[in-house]
Amino acid sequence: MDRNGIQHGNARAVAVTALTELLGPKGLLTAAPDCARYASDQSGLPGALPLAVLRPASTDEVSQALALCSRYRIGVVPQGGRTGLSGGACSAEGAVVLSTERMAGIAEIDREAMTLTAWAGTPLETVQEAARTVGLDYPVDIGARGTATIGGTIATNAGGIRVLQHGMTRANVLGLEAVLADGSVVSRLGKTVKDNSGFDLKQLFIGSEGTLGIVTRAVLQLCRQVPQSALALFALPDHAAALACLAAARRRFGSRITAFEGMWPDYWEFVCHATSLASPPMAGRHGFYLLIEVEAGSEGAEDELEAFFAELFEAGLAEDGVLAKSVAEMRALWRVREAVGEADEGFGPHINFDIGLSPSALGRFCDAADVLLAGMLEAKGTLKVGHVGDGNVHLLVAHDGSGRAEERIEAAVYGLLRDWNGAVTAEHGIGRIKARWIGHSRTPEELAMMRGLKAQFDPLGILNPGALFADPER
Amino acid sequence: MDRNGIQHGNARAVAVTALTELLGPKGLLTAAPDCARYASDQSGLPGALPLAVLRPASTDEVSQALALCSRYRIGVVPQGGRTGLSGGACSAEGAVVLSTERMAGIAEIDREAMTLTAWAGTPLETVQEAARTVGLDYPVDIGARGTATIGGTIATNAGGIRVLQHGMTRANVLGLEAVLADGSVVSRLGKTVKDNSGFDLKQLFIGSEGTLGIVTRAVLQLCRQVPQSALALFALPDHAAALACLAAARRRFGSRITAFEGMWPDYWEFVCHATSLASPPMAGRHGFYLLIEVEAGSEGAEDELEAFFAELFEAGLAEDGVLAKSVAEMRALWRVREAVGEADEGFGPHINFDIGLSPSALGRFCDAADVLLAGMLEAKGTLKVGHVGDGNVHLLVAHDGSGRAEERIEAAVYGLLRDWNGAVTAEHGIGRIKARWIGHSRTPEELAMMRGLKAQFDPLGILNPGALFADPER
Repeated sequence: MDRNGIQHGNARAVAVTALTELLGPKGLLTAAPDCARYASDQSGLPGALPLAVLRPASTDEVSQALALCSRYRIGVVPQGGRTGLSGGACSAEGAVVLSTERMAGIAEIDREAMTLTAWAGTPLETVQEAARTVGLDYPVDIGARGTATIGGTIATNAGGIRVLQHGMTRANVLGLEAVLADGSVVSRLGKTVKDNSGFDLKQLFIGSEGTLGIVTRAVLQLCRQVPQSALALFALPDHAAALACLAAARRRFGSRITAFEGMWPDYWEFVCHATSLASPPMAGRHGFYLLIEVEAGSEGAEDELEAFFAELFEAGLAEDGVLAKSVAEMRALWRVREAVGEADEGFGPHINFDIGLSPSALGRFCDAADVLLAGMLEAKGTLKVGHVGDGNVHLLVAHDGSGRAEERIEAAVYGLLRDWNGAVTAEHGIGRIKARWIGHSRTPEELAMMRGLKAQFDPLGILNPGALFADPER
Repeated sequence: MDRNGIQHGNARAVAVTALTELLGPKGLLTAAPDCARYASDQSGLPGALPLAVLRPASTDEVSQALALCSRYRIGVVPQGGRTGLSGGACSAEGAVVLSTERMAGIAEIDREAMTLTAWAGTPLETVQEAARTVGLDYPVDIGARGTATIGGTIATNAGGIRVLQHGMTRANVLGLEAVLADGSVVSRLGKTVKDNSGFDLKQLFIGSEGTLGIVTRAVLQLCRQVPQSALALFALPDHAAALACLAAARRRFGSRITAFEGMWPDYWEFVCHATSLASPPMAGRHGFYLLIEVEAGSEGAEDELEAFFAELFEAGLAEDGVLAKSVAEMRALWRVREAVGEADEGFGPHINFDIGLSPSALGRFCDAADVLLAGMLEAKGTLKVGHVGDGNVHLLVAHDGSGRAEERIEAAVYGLLRDWNGAVTAEHGIGRIKARWIGHSRTPEELAMMRGLKAQFDPLGILNPGALFADPER
């Protein structure tokens, strides 16, 4: 055994044999080329070759598989769609992968209760589409919707573009079923909206990245489908103006604001001019760009957005604006914002920070980071795009490709963030990539409490070893 | 020591001396008449006379007091405004009470971030009023707002009349500071909206009724102040029609519905006719009464509610309606719903159930409960009032005052509820009164997980002994 208590050598072979017996040939992959496909996620971190890939088809199979892995002290890395950006689903040395891909499908939709019950392996988009067939919607929405699974979005507490109105995934899960490390099943799949009968245990599994249990099923709270919305792009002098616009938008539209996304000039120039990722929807150079979407009230939302622009222009808050007049124009405006995925791929060697702060501090933090990075030879420019209303910026920092550059830039940015009392990850999660930085956001008392929880529910440390907790001894 | 491990006799006197030294004369009460005032809450359950009442004035004092209580194995019952209905704040035998009353006040309001930081002992209404002075609001609202404290609302995950739009307390807390049983302080008082940097520890303290830690401060998420709203009372044929109205209201008003409250005929007759708690705002007898409040959109909300009533009337869903035309009329309509507090006092011996279910199942459950209770000689009638959109009914069952009646009626109603997969408490909490029934809502695996958490964070069992966990050995 190594210091993780994870088994080596022959014991592993015995464990794999027992798992094969349990799951059958469809439920277990051991050939290296098969296993290699499950080694990594979208983070770019190279994962270890999994010892085997478990593909259970039921909660009971997950339960029995985890009981076996506990018995043989085999690490288990849970995987959904492997679209994570923090390496939380990258395989660990000597561990098996547990993929939920054979546990997919929608068990039930209840229109009156506005709930949808799905298996963990169901893709997010499948859930959204199923909800729409009955005139409802599931408001958690991220770019990777076609591949990301419900189980993965729950394990990582996914955010996305509709958090302002509907909250993170945590706010949209009514019931949950999860399997603990020892194989016991903790199931609460009712549709009760208000429930104060004891601890809200599902909160422990949401956002804990598979380190406390593996999500197998969930009851999701659906929302009504927004019948019509309007979209505009506003050019502003700076981020401070964006905050003033947000306050004004809240006064005017109340809870009808469905998106309020910000782009800094570095990002705008990169996607619209330095590359051809998107066509620039307006000319000129501005200090900040804002994408605002509102759902229609009793009058047309386009007219309301036009009146809103006039108000902002009058107040000197907006310099230019484009209102989408068709579905095609809406797509073109969204394209500028959603090009961040390709920008991430085409920006050369860089670090993708996912900064969480008070919304009121976000702009000043970005200014301070710009100043800091301008003084570092290793840093080669930034792209900044994010969720203005949520205090979340995706800060991409290009560098010269050296390991030392990464180390120095991370230390600088996370050091600054610690001074600003922010979160080292707002929505992407800690995973394996940010595990060493968690202490910049959490106090020693909080980390002790987290370790206590981990020790309580996974005493052998078999669940997602290496994720979230940097210390190998947890 | 008794089986709880709580100290008796002289050891207690030593502990009280040490606590007196720590907290000073203003910070500790020991005279029996003083202590007696802190024995009970609004549940009617007689609490034991507290050994002493601790009134710490800072987080540090709470921390040192808990460290002392741990050392001497003295039970600690945390108290806010003592407005709870489940006995969660009733003092326990041989325990001290820890009141947050000297830790009151608002530390900061951040208009841009829309946050308010308050000490645990601050009354809810004080927070609401402070938010309104800057054009914002705090959406958690309950009848006991003048006395209930922020700490208490967090510890019990308070619900109330605005859950439909803003969620329970859990959804409105951004940051939290709590003290664990051993005195360690877990503090996270930032204003970060999106934060996936490890476990969301505050979720453990919210709704766990002071059994895992004592809340000392919180950062609350404010919302914009609703500029104008309209209120109407609709008479419907039955609860099924109320669900159809809710679906129609969601289509028409979207997220602008601020209240959607239901009253069954038994409740209506009691407050409007059998007593004079409220004046009947409409004549005739109907199968269900609905109070609906919506915030104004671009046109007047009154006109919209009138058009909505016409739609419902046309569809045979509404039989009669009253639209409030002035603030006085709004108050009169709300009065019928809010008379539940006095109804609770004037209804004679009864049990106050706080049932949580899927909204779609609530009406059928109430019908089944009526049939069940009609067959029980001990049951002397019901009052039913609740939150239609949240699947929460307050079911008051009158009985003949005998202990056996209570026992039999509770067994019958909770037994029915277990078959319906509901929550034995939707918003009032488990406290001491419902602790023995928690197994009707939670599985053995869930209860084991809850006990594991309790053992992890309060191994000596000093925090709120007897609350939430019925088993004295926890």
